[in-house]
Amino acid sequence: MRIVEIPARKLDARAFISEKAQEISDTVGDGTAITALSGGVDSSVVTRLGGLALGSRLKAYFINNGLMRKDEPQSVARVFRRIGIRVEVLDAQKPFFDALKGLRDPEEKREAITQTFYKKVFGQLVKSSGARFLLQGTILTDVEETVAGVKRQHNVLEQLGVDPQAAFGYGIIEPLLQLRKDGVRKLAKALGLPVSVYKRMPFPGPALAARVVGEVTPERVEVVRAATAIVESELRNVRAFQYMAILHDDQFAGMRDGKREFGRQIEVRCWSSVDARTAKPVWLPRRELQRLAARLTREVPGIVSVTYNIASKPPSTMEAV
Amino acid sequence: MRIVEIPARKLDARAFISEKAQEISDTVGDGTAITALSGGVDSSVVTRLGGLALGSRLKAYFINNGLMRKDEPQSVARVFRRIGIRVEVLDAQKPFFDALKGLRDPEEKREAITQTFYKKVFGQLVKSSGARFLLQGTILTDVEETVAGVKRQHNVLEQLGVDPQAAFGYGIIEPLLQLRKDGVRKLAKALGLPVSVYKRMPFPGPALAARVVGEVTPERVEVVRAATAIVESELRNVRAFQYMAILHDDQFAGMRDGKREFGRQIEVRCWSSVDARTAKPVWLPRRELQRLAARLTREVPGIVSVTYNIASKPPSTMEAV
Repeated sequence: MRIVEIPARKLDARAFISEKAQEISDTVGDGTAITALSGGVDSSVVTRLGGLALGSRLKAYFINNGLMRKDEPQSVARVFRRIGIRVEVLDAQKPFFDALKGLRDPEEKREAITQTFYKKVFGQLVKSSGARFLLQGTILTDVEETVAGVKRQHNVLEQLGVDPQAAFGYGIIEPLLQLRKDGVRKLAKALGLPVSVYKRMPFPGPALAARVVGEVTPERVEVVRAATAIVESELRNVRAFQYMAILHDDQFAGMRDGKREFGRQIEVRCWSSVDARTAKPVWLPRRELQRLAARLTREVPGIVSVTYNIASKPPSTMEAV
Repeated sequence: MRIVEIPARKLDARAFISEKAQEISDTVGDGTAITALSGGVDSSVVTRLGGLALGSRLKAYFINNGLMRKDEPQSVARVFRRIGIRVEVLDAQKPFFDALKGLRDPEEKREAITQTFYKKVFGQLVKSSGARFLLQGTILTDVEETVAGVKRQHNVLEQLGVDPQAAFGYGIIEPLLQLRKDGVRKLAKALGLPVSVYKRMPFPGPALAARVVGEVTPERVEVVRAATAIVESELRNVRAFQYMAILHDDQFAGMRDGKREFGRQIEVRCWSSVDARTAKPVWLPRRELQRLAARLTREVPGIVSVTYNIASKPPSTMEAV
């Protein structure tokens, strides 16, 4: 299957919105569709599009997989409630952590999250809801990265030859397939979504699991969640494409109260980038780095060491795994 | 046993040197003593002192444990040849790597190096040489850190209740026990050692093994050795107490030729410190960090990511393990 790209500058947002709303409406007929909202701009745009096309026949869910940032499920639901879309937050922490238990390989962790999402949590949701369609915000970059083997995106299925109807029992509608991130942002604006949505920093599909090196346990996610809150709060006024905290698995010597204590390291990355295809570190002022290191070692339990990533993409990637 | 400290400012270097040379001479009598030179200022001063006291009855060795920096054995031998002390370089790479095989715990790795050094390599050396004494550059800080449990120094034995005579078959002479690093540097100068010795940057007892997180294999030491050569060459004009490259064990996503490739991370640390008891990172200029990251990812095989440590000691330590 060949997808014809629509570059952002050529995108007629209004025409695209009415065309896609019509397509969704035609496909779903008088049935219902489901969408899983992550808070990201792609899934937000798709949810809004689905709302326009289907009204209350669209069921929007936020799956709390236990891997989200501090207060994220509540704040996403709040944003959509304000624009008239009811989002149900579903607590699915247990199946995700069960699936992740003991896994250390990045590909296996991603696969466990994908499988748990589509087969277990979503499959049951679709079944119990009676919906026959899943509305999904896959974009062209997701497809390309997955096909090229750069990164296995969690939302690319048909492009890999997986038939979701046969595998999971529902069809997938992907209205954003021809767009890249900048096109989706343009749509978000045209759809009246708040700036917090369309200017939102990219956040990976596997959420904080992508920022935990080694096994993903509730305790380790809690550590990276606390570090993430500090980094996002400290760097909120920095002009950057993306910034993040990564919890390492390696152990490092540290000292507390004059005694040696082994602990872990938090790596901070702060990227300058246009389209995520290449990226360079933002060179933060010394004072900012000092504050980050001081807060992370003081406020996050078990952290004795903090680093700042100074490599470029390539050969680095933006996320750790 | 209580050791009375001699602070550097109160140290009468000439008097101290002749007093210690006399003590060494009295202790060894008409026998021979051995010293193991690491290239560090402590062992260099002790070797020079031993040379003054014993002349050719001092046998100086450089044990090449496979964990030293690029060209280090040869360059140390060269420095001492110039001041009239013959240093024999002993290839002992195999027993050290055999002992380190499969070990990942930092304490176990240190212990393996200590045991291999004292029992295997040095024990045999002493036996075959007929020497009854080992001249050693232990300083007060080594003893304190070991006793306090901050760090197990490789050269502290009697202070831990180990009788080297019973354990290894030789006595240990430690003429620098009352001094700290600044006192030893003062002695080095008074003894006419070259500036490359007495202004040499601190380097850990377990050598590059202290900078390899995870298993210490010949291949992994080769990686950190190449990274160390780059960091030391790039930062040679920086005013710093110490700088280093650390090879992590965690794996990170990277990209080469448009494909994902998992690789490892090099962490650079560059410390500003007076006495190593506390330390802060040196805030290197952006250009320097860029050059470090570019060279490390380009020239060191398998490295896809580079970080710079921004924490302070405490709660960090200067070395990684």
